Amino acid sequence: MCPAADAAPSFLFLPELGTLPSRFPLAGEAGRYLTRVVRAREGERVHASDGAGLVALLRVERAGPEPLLVVESSRVCPPAPPARLLCGAPEGERGDWLVEKLAELGITELRLVDCARARWPERGREARWERLAEAALRQSRSAWKMAIRPPVPLERALEGLAAGPRWLADAAAAPLATPDTAADAPLAGAVGPSPGFSDDERGVLVAAGFSPVRLAPARLRAETAAVALAAHWAAWREPRPPA
Amino acid sequence: MCPAADAAPSFLFLPELGTLPSRFPLAGEAGRYLTRVVRAREGERVHASDGAGLVALLRVERAGPEPLLVVESSRVCPPAPPARLLCGAPEGERGDWLVEKLAELGITELRLVDCARARWPERGREARWERLAEAALRQSRSAWKMAIRPPVPLERALEGLAAGPRWLADAAAAPLATPDTAADAPLAGAVGPSPGFSDDERGVLVAAGFSPVRLAPARLRAETAAVALAAHWAAWREPRPPA
Repeated sequence: MCPAADAAPSFLFLPELGTLPSRFPLAGEAGRYLTRVVRAREGERVHASDGAGLVALLRVERAGPEPLLVVESSRVCPPAPPARLLCGAPEGERGDWLVEKLAELGITELRLVDCARARWPERGREARWERLAEAALRQSRSAWKMAIRPPVPLERALEGLAAGPRWLADAAAAPLATPDTAADAPLAGAVGPSPGFSDDERGVLVAAGFSPVRLAPARLRAETAAVALAAHWAAWREPRPPA
Repeated sequence: MCPAADAAPSFLFLPELGTLPSRFPLAGEAGRYLTRVVRAREGERVHASDGAGLVALLRVERAGPEPLLVVESSRVCPPAPPARLLCGAPEGERGDWLVEKLAELGITELRLVDCARARWPERGREARWERLAEAALRQSRSAWKMAIRPPVPLERALEGLAAGPRWLADAAAAPLATPDTAADAPLAGAVGPSPGFSDDERGVLVAAGFSPVRLAPARLRAETAAVALAAHWAAWREPRPPA
């Protein structure tokens, strides 16, 4: 992650950061967040990111209901290597925490997949999921926000994946092993909906180079499998000691 | 896991299983679950566990609102090696999914810790968390139910831990590495509450042999760190290929 973990403790999501002057009033949701949640005081410093690589260190010139901020410095952070998850719909409201946890664990792109056995619910959740991804960005002080792609059939969700290791969560497969690839290799994974992928879908994924792996000795719910895979990926992204 | 993953698809939690005759009517919550959720039909077979190692294969002799079951076979499954997590309180309602996900991922015992900077809420959640642990047992077809210990201070939560590797989730530490221990070693981990462990608590844990480890490049919420550690443990419990 580009911003230092021990830097200014508070972190804002400001999608318009790149277009702001060096001194600007902070209105809207970010202003309320700064005032009510951060409770920033005059002279305090906060970090902000636009969710697309730009991070700035800001000084609070005026606190209170109409905060005024000054850009002290800014820099552009390169994107993390791709870590893309294709997910079928979990049960009920479980999509909410799927989004939150994948964003926290550093998934770069969540591709929602409409499957033969389960489709994502029609609309209505996009705005909520964006807010969850933004909150996860603040929590993890990330320069980049997880992208959430609207539901598409599997074949379309497979388009444009970078070359790299690919896994398919499958309770009946062999256990997951740490791959022998570079820590910055593009990663891709597929997790079926709660009733599972159909045999056809499974065949499409295997043909596309997805290796079936079991993530735990017991059966996991769809969203748990996705988060478990993301937890493994997060660890693999760390610098590795020489073998 | 003792019951085969591809055995009878439905799984009941029957804490009284060990005291039942070989033919019994199924009343109460389990009866409603069998009728309304499983929609079991006459002649169908289901698995049941008492959450304490006893698993039985049952045949539905009579379906409907007052189901009658026959025990076809039963066996006692040994407990999984201990995998104990000491957890401080996460924010808000996040304890609910902490419980559900840790149970799914095979944590054997969740020890709630009242910390200097955050305490678990007073009562009121025990019954709900038990139901979540029971649902996770059904989901993972497990012979054993995760034990949830009521909140105690850290020193008491450390009592009676078996010898084995111990980790402390710490965003400022070195990355987690797969330990060089047997797949059945007793595991222990500690995850602080949302404001983190105090320096004193951290000192107590390190003195008790807990190694600080970072679970992801970015800062994780308390409950996310706990679930990430549980995901790693689940993978370590799998049989490992020879090095």
